[in-house]
Amino acid sequence: MDVTVALDAMGGDYAPKETVSGAIEAVKEFGQISVILVGREADINNELSKYEDYPKDRIKVVNADEIIDMGEVPTLAIKEKKNSSLVVAMKLVRDGEADAIVSAGSTGAILVGGQLVVGRIKGVKRPALAPFLPTKKGMSLLIDCGANVDAKPENLVQFAQMGSIYYENVMGVKNPTVGIVNIGTEEEKGNKLVKETGPLLKECKDINFIGSVEARDIPSKPSNVLVCEAFVGNVILKLFEGLALTFLGVVKKALFKSTKTKVGALLIKKSLKEQLSLFDTKDQGGAPLLGLKGLVVKAHGNSKSFEIKTAIGQCITFKENDISGKISKVVGGNE
Amino acid sequence: MDVTVALDAMGGDYAPKETVSGAIEAVKEFGQISVILVGREADINNELSKYEDYPKDRIKVVNADEIIDMGEVPTLAIKEKKNSSLVVAMKLVRDGEADAIVSAGSTGAILVGGQLVVGRIKGVKRPALAPFLPTKKGMSLLIDCGANVDAKPENLVQFAQMGSIYYENVMGVKNPTVGIVNIGTEEEKGNKLVKETGPLLKECKDINFIGSVEARDIPSKPSNVLVCEAFVGNVILKLFEGLALTFLGVVKKALFKSTKTKVGALLIKKSLKEQLSLFDTKDQGGAPLLGLKGLVVKAHGNSKSFEIKTAIGQCITFKENDISGKISKVVGGNE
Repeated sequence: MDVTVALDAMGGDYAPKETVSGAIEAVKEFGQISVILVGREADINNELSKYEDYPKDRIKVVNADEIIDMGEVPTLAIKEKKNSSLVVAMKLVRDGEADAIVSAGSTGAILVGGQLVVGRIKGVKRPALAPFLPTKKGMSLLIDCGANVDAKPENLVQFAQMGSIYYENVMGVKNPTVGIVNIGTEEEKGNKLVKETGPLLKECKDINFIGSVEARDIPSKPSNVLVCEAFVGNVILKLFEGLALTFLGVVKKALFKSTKTKVGALLIKKSLKEQLSLFDTKDQGGAPLLGLKGLVVKAHGNSKSFEIKTAIGQCITFKENDISGKISKVVGGNE
Repeated sequence: MDVTVALDAMGGDYAPKETVSGAIEAVKEFGQISVILVGREADINNELSKYEDYPKDRIKVVNADEIIDMGEVPTLAIKEKKNSSLVVAMKLVRDGEADAIVSAGSTGAILVGGQLVVGRIKGVKRPALAPFLPTKKGMSLLIDCGANVDAKPENLVQFAQMGSIYYENVMGVKNPTVGIVNIGTEEEKGNKLVKETGPLLKECKDINFIGSVEARDIPSKPSNVLVCEAFVGNVILKLFEGLALTFLGVVKKALFKSTKTKVGALLIKKSLKEQLSLFDTKDQGGAPLLGLKGLVVKAHGNSKSFEIKTAIGQCITFKENDISGKISKVVGGNE
């Protein structure tokens, strides 16, 4: 099945160098992928000219002069910068010229653009950003980590449904477990939103709900799909990143303290690297924005070519498994 | 200044063995401390009989037959178990027979008991549980991590005021920085609660407000006082604990993988321990429940004698600095 991905060539800390390079790696690795590079044509062509040996028929460039910066207010940026690489790339999805859009640009703008330009699936009340979180039990899907805070119980139920479909199709786990992030496992625990959502999730026949998951257990024994409101999800995701970085820094400092520790470091280096790879999300590509008519993938802002390539590659599974169609059937059917 | 601490001798995973032992360590180390051990007299005396050389005039036992278990619904437990070690110990504070109560028992019961038995300071709308969080910049006070979820903006302002007073007096930092936990640092970011609270914190003259702190920055560059709603605070605290444990487990596994790595481990052991001590909260005692007429300290459920002793010791600073009086002046003055 051929898959066409519109890539926001100007989005991310290392654009357009790493985005263009990621696109080339993608068309080389995945025979069914075509990439439309969207952004300043001159800049993109300049990058492309550095490569020779790649399937040129599967790389196309579409010009877009404007760039949405990280600091811009998302709603304004999407409305005013009609000719930005992000908006133009999203329009390609809306108009059916691409199956998916990948961007490492401003998360807020991607979320707003996804809803305003690509559009929600009928019946989906709110799309949700769903990154994978590395845990001792493998990857968990944390849904929602987006910018649509203060969700309602009915939104969280849809997140659970969409997350289950995505997890099952992408990770190949039948009937994945779904938990709700909570401050205790007893039923009377939680804030108003969680207490109201719990019973709805219990009743929902489309998911395999296992109850509350305490934040303490997320790194060690989480459910496959972790449902939460976006503010909480964002805090979890960012704290995960921040703590992992801090821990790594601390361990590194200990290893490089003296000649003695440096010798020790040499002896444990390989084993430590193997163990730490558990926390590596590089292979997971980007986070999908679920509930839209086309696939929107948010890659990490500091993505290099490898992550861009992986994010492009993940669009294949998404299309082949018709994840949007399945979401439409399950969630849209609730209307 | 003499300080009398009522200790819930039956609370915690290792009670009464470790609580009694912690009390003895405390009276030995702190000349101004007296401890009232509250719980089953026979059990407590049995433990006490194992020790000989301690200032017996500064340890008293008050009998309380009931125990509140971890699984009980807090409000019911506090109302129905009037003769539990926790409730009896709290009454000693309410009646002025003790300055403070320390318990390693059920957090929920401690929070409910603190409000119902010890009572709020006039003007304080909600007490808040405020543990220290270890960061690369030293300890940050995370307020609120309690069970009173769904707070209002006015509650968060009081948390900021109380947290500042506590931090300044306990850590000796004049004018400590106060930040609000948020999902971005720009002013338009946040959920309804954070957006409404931000301007109020900005206007509040009692605190040194520095704006939003993203979860990602909490481990590396937080404010001294981190204000948040209890659900979010609880998630942060528990995720911190869970991730630290998981990470340590991963590093240990790497170190013990083979003979070669074990040799390496010996060489880096000391340096690694030093670095990791950064994340040790053992010396911090327990988390105070701020805003009550007396001091209520929640020690970790898995506290051993050392942590119990430290939690008892921290009551000295609290009384000597008249933290409740200062809170009453600042927060009560707002009525």
